[in-house]
Amino acid sequence: MSDKLDLLNAKIAEIADLNGIGALLGWDQQVLMPSGGTEDRANQAALIGQLSHQRTTSDEMGQLISDLEAELGDLNADTDEARIVKLAKRNYELLTKIPLEKLIEFIRVTTMANDVWVKARQENNFKSFQPILQRIIELRQEYSEVFKPYDHVYDPLLDQFEPGMKTADVIKIFDILRPKQVELIKAIRDSKQVDNSFIKQNYAKDLQEKFGRFVITRFGYDWTRGRLDIAPHPFTTGFGWGDTRITTRYLDNDGLSALFSTMHESGHAMYEQGLDKKYARTAIQGGTSLAFHESQSRMWENLVGRSYEFWTYFYPTFQMLFSNHLGNVSLDQFYKGINRVEPSLIRVEADEATYNLHIMLRLEIEIGLIENSIDSKDLPEIWNTKMQEYLGITPPNDTLGVLQDVHWSGGMIGYFSTYALGNVVSAQLWDAMRADHSTIPDEMRKGNFSTILNWLRDKVHKHGSKYEPQELLQKITGHKLSPEPYIHYLTEKYKNIYNI
Amino acid sequence: MSDKLDLLNAKIAEIADLNGIGALLGWDQQVLMPSGGTEDRANQAALIGQLSHQRTTSDEMGQLISDLEAELGDLNADTDEARIVKLAKRNYELLTKIPLEKLIEFIRVTTMANDVWVKARQENNFKSFQPILQRIIELRQEYSEVFKPYDHVYDPLLDQFEPGMKTADVIKIFDILRPKQVELIKAIRDSKQVDNSFIKQNYAKDLQEKFGRFVITRFGYDWTRGRLDIAPHPFTTGFGWGDTRITTRYLDNDGLSALFSTMHESGHAMYEQGLDKKYARTAIQGGTSLAFHESQSRMWENLVGRSYEFWTYFYPTFQMLFSNHLGNVSLDQFYKGINRVEPSLIRVEADEATYNLHIMLRLEIEIGLIENSIDSKDLPEIWNTKMQEYLGITPPNDTLGVLQDVHWSGGMIGYFSTYALGNVVSAQLWDAMRADHSTIPDEMRKGNFSTILNWLRDKVHKHGSKYEPQELLQKITGHKLSPEPYIHYLTEKYKNIYNI
Repeated sequence: MSDKLDLLNAKIAEIADLNGIGALLGWDQQVLMPSGGTEDRANQAALIGQLSHQRTTSDEMGQLISDLEAELGDLNADTDEARIVKLAKRNYELLTKIPLEKLIEFIRVTTMANDVWVKARQENNFKSFQPILQRIIELRQEYSEVFKPYDHVYDPLLDQFEPGMKTADVIKIFDILRPKQVELIKAIRDSKQVDNSFIKQNYAKDLQEKFGRFVITRFGYDWTRGRLDIAPHPFTTGFGWGDTRITTRYLDNDGLSALFSTMHESGHAMYEQGLDKKYARTAIQGGTSLAFHESQSRMWENLVGRSYEFWTYFYPTFQMLFSNHLGNVSLDQFYKGINRVEPSLIRVEADEATYNLHIMLRLEIEIGLIENSIDSKDLPEIWNTKMQEYLGITPPNDTLGVLQDVHWSGGMIGYFSTYALGNVVSAQLWDAMRADHSTIPDEMRKGNFSTILNWLRDKVHKHGSKYEPQELLQKITGHKLSPEPYIHYLTEKYKNIYNI
Repeated sequence: MSDKLDLLNAKIAEIADLNGIGALLGWDQQVLMPSGGTEDRANQAALIGQLSHQRTTSDEMGQLISDLEAELGDLNADTDEARIVKLAKRNYELLTKIPLEKLIEFIRVTTMANDVWVKARQENNFKSFQPILQRIIELRQEYSEVFKPYDHVYDPLLDQFEPGMKTADVIKIFDILRPKQVELIKAIRDSKQVDNSFIKQNYAKDLQEKFGRFVITRFGYDWTRGRLDIAPHPFTTGFGWGDTRITTRYLDNDGLSALFSTMHESGHAMYEQGLDKKYARTAIQGGTSLAFHESQSRMWENLVGRSYEFWTYFYPTFQMLFSNHLGNVSLDQFYKGINRVEPSLIRVEADEATYNLHIMLRLEIEIGLIENSIDSKDLPEIWNTKMQEYLGITPPNDTLGVLQDVHWSGGMIGYFSTYALGNVVSAQLWDAMRADHSTIPDEMRKGNFSTILNWLRDKVHKHGSKYEPQELLQKITGHKLSPEPYIHYLTEKYKNIYNI
């Protein structure tokens, strides 16, 4: 058996290398590549995708997996070996269902679409993006078809990012969250609004960057295994255990948006950096699900980065760096300002109280597009109508509306829900962590985050995808996925800020 | 036949994509990658090298080439089709001779060696680099063995970079150049030295970069198909027709070194950018030889960038940007200063009169290493002895001596001679261009370089490797490779500067 397992591991390591190469091709395209490189890059990305696909789905791989399954029959299902075979089998089955030429087309189209989207967004021109978006939707519909029978046509798309989660499960959780969040927002609307005008100004970008680097260094981001760069849409990507990179972008009219996205991406990256090295280049490498990934990013961004304790430590430094903007702003005013609740246009800049509503809107639209009850040509109008319905505001243009997110251009339909689920998981983990370590608030006030990072590493990061997401959550918290801790967290937080 | 040719072209396009990916892996490693990424990157680069090698040397490729050769028998040897088959055959034969496991080891070792060299150079620690260098030398010796019989064990290494050139040919050319250059240097040493102290100062790096970008934009470097970044050793690399990147580095104690290396690399890049697009992703893509490549880089750096005409146009701007350093320096003083001849330690900073001597020294050492008449352990001592012999100076440390160049860490033994041969070719091309366009000096004085670039595109760039280097040179200039024009150029230039 050991020989066959070694062979499987060698094959998986090679696939991991190919995927790391594919990630570099994508990172470079988004961060650095001159526009002239697009055509070659599309060919290169398609080739790597094809090679990775061929290796994942080869007959030899299929044979190896079933041989190993048979031999592992009586082995404890909890061993690394059993998990590796199981994950390899999942990938094999997922990918053998997709015709190779479809996969290649998908990679080629989404690689080209990135540049089309960047340009369309710059020029506020949805029409120039719609045809390629339509093609992406069709390719995703064809993808779903392959997984028939399903409860819902959207299920296979969701399952890519959140294994085991069904459309109906998400809708159920959202149906609990929605009224509570709407109620909270209503109570806030009836209270005295807090001021954040001191944030919505032009902050020196070099100092923003310096401060962002300072903060995530304190968090424990490992610079010997990563970088921070600028990209139009912040993201995290990894090329292997030793290189997980993050990006952010600095806005002209907001002094904190880049900081929050830097903290957010550092949360993703620290999850990858915290993997037990023995799992590098194995099937267990990588987070167990997107919701778990988002639980990490949104925990560092919000539960840590938007907390009173965090700013108790960091505000004096931040105030000194930006004394022109903040010289007369107290810590309390600042804390309230950065937590101001206000229906807004851009998801990544939304406050915690309204954030999930942006996600619910996207879920409805994605389901409609996949079900064909929404025509992509009508997207700007539908987007704006739903924004009015959910948040009471209408985007003045598509750049600030339907064109704002990178996801669809990358074919990532089914992804958005994981952000809201990540919020839910983050609060469950936070409660469990706080129960283990009551000293955490005090440590945060002293700028010490090592208890948090060590707990996350031990409970979450080091395991990679050793456990199914729901299984890991149960193991750590003793509970299933549950929206209550997040609702409780939000309610308590804003009760103080808005005197509700 | 058309089917088979299409198939060959498709295979070559895929190999071109793989090689473009390999180039990106290398560029990223040298320019951006955090140190933690080294291990994964070595695996990734080895995998891509292996895939490219397998495809270049597959039995199917061999069969396809011999079928096409037979069918093309009576076709004009000057057609693109015939050339493509010929180049594919050359690659096939070159690579089928090398055992795959050797190739993989070579890629893996040289990928690791880059970081070892960077560190050794930083820390002035040749001993830490010697073991991996020794392994590289052995791998290169094994490489040569495969090509027996040869006139000289060094021939196969040279042939990689300069197809058709023999060690004896290079030695013959160097034997003509050496006494003339030594004589010139002696005459200069007996003349009044010119001042360049105003250059050897700390120039603001952001302004250096701005000016460098300004100059190569004027040359015609296409920014939509390239980038300029910083790397410890300046280099050019391409990932396809649409993306050819250059790097430079800004020194603390020299205001012009970065500019000259930027111009140098832009010359390489414009060669690649000038390729007729119909040759993109074909066997004809890429310059015809390294000497031709260096003829382009050194022409832009020296024949253009160190000329009186060039600075007649650019000096007022440069003087204004760096008025603290140059406010009292006249154009004539400046021109003489940047052309000061002085035996110096670093090849890439050497003046034109001494430059080739740095190359001759390296050629002798490389031949010795490959012949085993030099032990790599003795390299620092041998280097320093030869520096004393050739240039009359001894490096104070190995960072400024034997560790200065990146080439050996990358396994590029056989490469250096092409720099000197490039100088020789550049003067031959320059004479031919000037014969066609007597207005060029006047245009340069007006900051107009389009006649030069257009001539080079038409005569050299657009053809890629359609012609053998010697054939192309003959076609353009009517002459074989000949050191006389370069000797003439050097002699005339320094006669004026040093009143010889």
